[in-house]
Amino acid sequence: MTLTILDTTLRDGALTEDITLTVEDKLRLAPLIDSLGVHYLEGGWPQVEGRDLNFFEQVGDLGLKARITAFGATRRPETVVKRDRGMQLLLETAAPVIHLYGKVWTLHVEKVLGTTRDENLAMLRDSVGLMKEAGREVIYTAEHYFDGFREDREYALANLKAAVESGADIISLGDSNGASLPELIQEGMRAARDTVGSAVLGLHLHDDLGLALANTLAGLGAGAAHVQGTVNGYGARTGITDLCILLPILKLKMGVDVVSDEQLARLSDVARRVAEIVGLGEQMDHHPVVGRKVFAHKTQTHVAAVLSAPQAYEAIEPERVGNTRRLLLPGLTRPTYLQEIARQYGVDLSSDSAANAHILSVLKGLEDQGYTYEDASASLELRLAALTGHATLQLGVERLRLFEVIRGLNQTVVESSLKVRVDGETLYVGAEGREPLEALYLVLIEALRGSPGLREKADGLRLGRARIRNLAPGKVRVTVSFTGTGREWTTVGIDQDVIRAMWTALLDGVEYGISDLRVQTGQDSTDQIRD
Amino acid sequence: MTLTILDTTLRDGALTEDITLTVEDKLRLAPLIDSLGVHYLEGGWPQVEGRDLNFFEQVGDLGLKARITAFGATRRPETVVKRDRGMQLLLETAAPVIHLYGKVWTLHVEKVLGTTRDENLAMLRDSVGLMKEAGREVIYTAEHYFDGFREDREYALANLKAAVESGADIISLGDSNGASLPELIQEGMRAARDTVGSAVLGLHLHDDLGLALANTLAGLGAGAAHVQGTVNGYGARTGITDLCILLPILKLKMGVDVVSDEQLARLSDVARRVAEIVGLGEQMDHHPVVGRKVFAHKTQTHVAAVLSAPQAYEAIEPERVGNTRRLLLPGLTRPTYLQEIARQYGVDLSSDSAANAHILSVLKGLEDQGYTYEDASASLELRLAALTGHATLQLGVERLRLFEVIRGLNQTVVESSLKVRVDGETLYVGAEGREPLEALYLVLIEALRGSPGLREKADGLRLGRARIRNLAPGKVRVTVSFTGTGREWTTVGIDQDVIRAMWTALLDGVEYGISDLRVQTGQDSTDQIRD
Repeated sequence: MTLTILDTTLRDGALTEDITLTVEDKLRLAPLIDSLGVHYLEGGWPQVEGRDLNFFEQVGDLGLKARITAFGATRRPETVVKRDRGMQLLLETAAPVIHLYGKVWTLHVEKVLGTTRDENLAMLRDSVGLMKEAGREVIYTAEHYFDGFREDREYALANLKAAVESGADIISLGDSNGASLPELIQEGMRAARDTVGSAVLGLHLHDDLGLALANTLAGLGAGAAHVQGTVNGYGARTGITDLCILLPILKLKMGVDVVSDEQLARLSDVARRVAEIVGLGEQMDHHPVVGRKVFAHKTQTHVAAVLSAPQAYEAIEPERVGNTRRLLLPGLTRPTYLQEIARQYGVDLSSDSAANAHILSVLKGLEDQGYTYEDASASLELRLAALTGHATLQLGVERLRLFEVIRGLNQTVVESSLKVRVDGETLYVGAEGREPLEALYLVLIEALRGSPGLREKADGLRLGRARIRNLAPGKVRVTVSFTGTGREWTTVGIDQDVIRAMWTALLDGVEYGISDLRVQTGQDSTDQIRD
Repeated sequence: MTLTILDTTLRDGALTEDITLTVEDKLRLAPLIDSLGVHYLEGGWPQVEGRDLNFFEQVGDLGLKARITAFGATRRPETVVKRDRGMQLLLETAAPVIHLYGKVWTLHVEKVLGTTRDENLAMLRDSVGLMKEAGREVIYTAEHYFDGFREDREYALANLKAAVESGADIISLGDSNGASLPELIQEGMRAARDTVGSAVLGLHLHDDLGLALANTLAGLGAGAAHVQGTVNGYGARTGITDLCILLPILKLKMGVDVVSDEQLARLSDVARRVAEIVGLGEQMDHHPVVGRKVFAHKTQTHVAAVLSAPQAYEAIEPERVGNTRRLLLPGLTRPTYLQEIARQYGVDLSSDSAANAHILSVLKGLEDQGYTYEDASASLELRLAALTGHATLQLGVERLRLFEVIRGLNQTVVESSLKVRVDGETLYVGAEGREPLEALYLVLIEALRGSPGLREKADGLRLGRARIRNLAPGKVRVTVSFTGTGREWTTVGIDQDVIRAMWTALLDGVEYGISDLRVQTGQDSTDQIRD
């Protein structure tokens, strides 16, 4: 089976309620997604998000392997296709692949578009025809195909026929409400196959009833050779087919060689980085296959069984997808990213030496406190650099004070003061912020500015986004992002006291900012700003 | 089709890494789950969690409709069944239904149990036989049935045959690693059907590959008449079949009358309350069917389409599962729980009056700030009570100061002081805590203790668990739980400043604690302590 995968994390994924992607976000995400070996990378919908044009302009510089794809609707009713604004915007992108969607369900044609069935077919023919004339590869998605098929089979199939005849390269069938059961998917696929002859059929399946994956397998069983999905299943409402689950099932359970072993082994890392960039990192604990906690074994029975035969309680080998087994009773786990970063400092953590034993015991202590670093590798780098003698602390904090006064709803004052040694001198500095994080950050900047050697670096630092969430036993995890000196980095602090957790992350972040640390692996490239 | 559902949120659900349930938690969860109309409610595994015996002792007082079920393994190898500790503990429970699991996969029999195939079958026969003799209904789960079936079909089927012959009432087939695809489920089910004659077959399917639901549908298609699942799909590793998705699919898409319309309409509320009680509320935003944000429509295209024809982008009607449509451009939504609580104060929020318009505009303003109350109804009650003249604020806060000093890793001082009017008198009080939340709480208690009329109530209050997480636009949501005066309640605060968010929740919580508010509906009964 030759199967192609289209990733639409940057387009359908961005329709998830809590996801809002800037062009910069998309440019950070694209190489991560590309590294998984997907065949098409859908970057945006220029008619709905004008800024997507900038993405299409800039993405060429990244040298990605996937074919860049732009998304849009067929032309509007009663317009000349060449003068249609949506068509013009699609042609403005240099994208070699155009993904068009058209209406199939008569409910949509008549109620939503307010046009006739014939005009809807003409819109489809004109739009696909124009893009083919322009030399683009065309993927056509028949939106709501399965709902339409249920209500008016003849019209749904006429729609597919029009797409084939106009020259569409791939015809993808949409379950756009995620309302179909696997039986309907198979029936609809078989009827489509009879209609379109040898054309390639694909799937665009939503997950409103948690069935996107079930339906994808049903559709593949009935002859689909193209699947559209997203990292972690993001997409409108509850999302669409989750590539982080589908790819391992295809490769490891069905023997479909859709991605390489190396690409598959990146999956967990990519899934978690993408989650942090889009701001949904907290959902990654129990996510199937790629979640942080899903190869975890909790009861004595399970732990004992897994120690004697891992397959006793594991659906796949965690290493195959870059995940890690965790036995919740004993033992230190050494995730790939930890070993990778250690290697930057010339430390092979898999070898048995006294120095390694010390490093691992320090890291184990931090792990026991809840520290993980997927989204905050700067903190891990600082620890490893210090443990291997590559960096020394530049700030000697003696005392921090935070002072907040709340008077009624809108009168709050937050002040901070810090006694600190910088460059051998003891300074006493103060600052004020709109809330504690800002007050704590600004007092650190004030301290740096007190040292002539650090003032310029301090002025170049910028505080980015802070994220906060509970860890299991009443602790709080705070991550803080920073930019400056051509880099972008994130640090982490964990504590029962939210202020101390913030302070830990901020101290790390500022220390990192004034250091020369800059890990240069491919794995970490997304932690760096593109110029 | 007569189908029975077993809920094992309290047993398999408690194997989720971040879930730890006390007996009190289980007694709060049981009536919620029971209200969904499940047929069996599995309460625990006494041999692994000794305290589960207390749950089985106390659950009888709740008058639940579901048949209470206790879980355990078949007897150990080479023991006399009546002297087996696990068997004795199961018999100690008054549970009318015993759910036994036995090994089927020869890998487990030989490597994990370290016994022979014949002895394993004898363990099964003895254990089922003993429970039947004791007059219990017996559900037998053939653990790893599908893995076993793949490797040694003959032995797997011999296992099922032994269970039938020993008198098991229901024989459930386990995909205990969640490693099987739907085709294998169907093949395994059909072979089982040929072996067990007219016995009832069931399914216990894990979700490690995100396929629990797909496999459940495949198994039902091949003749299963019993399904085991949990609220929100909790369970070991990535969980098991999610009843919050399965029940609506059965009822609304497949026409199986497994629960009533009223029970189904409770689903979203129950799902979110359970999530908050087990501590995973932050996962409920994008959960299919019952999530807070899954009937949300984001683009102009989608919103316009849904306004003209909701089924254009909705897999089911949200009202059927007690969920709410949200158009992210205009409009106020009025969730069921809000209308319910308003009714306690004699306010029918669906009627058009000037008073209602005022109430709704205040609530809309809070909603715009991010306020939701599923897990914090005490805050909503306070707002509604104030808006309808049923309660007045007892504390007039003039000024709060929080002061924190951090000296090195383990020397932190957190102090608070408060200028406040209580009972017409202005007081100035101070307190000290291990971290800010405690310091802020204690200073409020000090203020109450300054008033002779409130001292006793203040001494009865206890601070419970605090939860913290980000909301989308850089805000923090803090909920705090309290107990006292025979009640248990939770309040919420939202702010860009984490300290102010805590303070808002604490003020509400203490105000509620000294008030006489106590909503008495069934819906809110889980917010109250059982004596």
